[in-house]
Amino acid sequence: MFVTFEGIEGSGKSTAMRLLAETLRERGFDPVLTCEPGGSGLGRSLRSILLDARTRGISGRAELYLFLADRAQHVAEVINPALEAGQIVLCDRYCDSTYVYQGCGRGLAAEQLRSVNDMATGGLVPDLTLLLDLPVTQGLERAGRRNREAGTTVSEGRFDAESLDFHERVRRGYLELAAAEPERFAVIDAGQAPEDVLLQCLSAVETALQRRGRGLE
Amino acid sequence: MFVTFEGIEGSGKSTAMRLLAETLRERGFDPVLTCEPGGSGLGRSLRSILLDARTRGISGRAELYLFLADRAQHVAEVINPALEAGQIVLCDRYCDSTYVYQGCGRGLAAEQLRSVNDMATGGLVPDLTLLLDLPVTQGLERAGRRNREAGTTVSEGRFDAESLDFHERVRRGYLELAAAEPERFAVIDAGQAPEDVLLQCLSAVETALQRRGRGLE
Repeated sequence: MFVTFEGIEGSGKSTAMRLLAETLRERGFDPVLTCEPGGSGLGRSLRSILLDARTRGISGRAELYLFLADRAQHVAEVINPALEAGQIVLCDRYCDSTYVYQGCGRGLAAEQLRSVNDMATGGLVPDLTLLLDLPVTQGLERAGRRNREAGTTVSEGRFDAESLDFHERVRRGYLELAAAEPERFAVIDAGQAPEDVLLQCLSAVETALQRRGRGLE
Repeated sequence: MFVTFEGIEGSGKSTAMRLLAETLRERGFDPVLTCEPGGSGLGRSLRSILLDARTRGISGRAELYLFLADRAQHVAEVINPALEAGQIVLCDRYCDSTYVYQGCGRGLAAEQLRSVNDMATGGLVPDLTLLLDLPVTQGLERAGRRNREAGTTVSEGRFDAESLDFHERVRRGYLELAAAEPERFAVIDAGQAPEDVLLQCLSAVETALQRRGRGLE
């Protein structure tokens, strides 16, 4: 089963993913944890280019193609082999990030983005997408704290520096995607305590597994 | 005017471009010399990933998207501004390289390649493409010598290491593109002495300039 985590900066995707993985392991599963950009060897080279706040002046299209290169390699090298081995794959960001950041955020055409994403992934769609939803101001406050603590390490800095309006468009974009595909998306209130976020994630995974004729026990 | 140089490895594109630029300067032009991959700041980061013989296991699609990221940034940052300033742009490799290396070489679908290239370039097509044509064995011999002389510097090493059959498909692909667009392409025998290659390049540039109502004098 392929589960993706989506949400604005500071929405707690990494924490939720880590807690969910721990619980799945306690229940005998062996989940693979990965992320975009940066889930493959090539991706790690690209991640530093893409997220580094020093990478200025990169055009919207060039940025898009870098994310797609990362994704194509990630699907071929990491996600598909794990799925074929029957593992649960937990992935921090995937195609929906492209739709909202490059589409709603940067204004690239939605139809073109669908077609290039399909080409990059060979049409691989998540079984479940956990959307961690949070007001933009709260998310950016958390992300700012994280970046200050991380010091010089590569962070999501270049996107954090976008305007409040950019992040509002991204949040709205996510909620619209979730409304259009209610079967695939579970919208989770990311303002709750991490334990409560985890419970909601678990319940969504349970539902998705049952839909596939399996359970968490 | 936008002039691109195409051809297999070792066909002498860089030398021909340098000699042509010198002649154009003597005649009062101020040409911009650039290349793909690596013509922009972002592109230089990508070039080392793309051409380094150590970058193994990169999928055909991931490779394609890296070339497109390089191209999108190159057009936006370098080529379009120079063309708008009225300069002659000489570019070592452009879209046709994608058609033959990723299309004929790696087998990606021609139609998809056209559509993503159009998206990357905003539809910018060269006014003139100089195809330096040479038997594959001669080209690879030259490229091998160049790589050995360059020692550890980044070269076109990863592509040089492909099979003879790969390079044969690339050469055939170039000749087919030239046959389909005889107005844009000038096919030049790259087995001649550099001075003779230059004369043929000059004559093609002259023709293209006249077509635009200008001359070289």
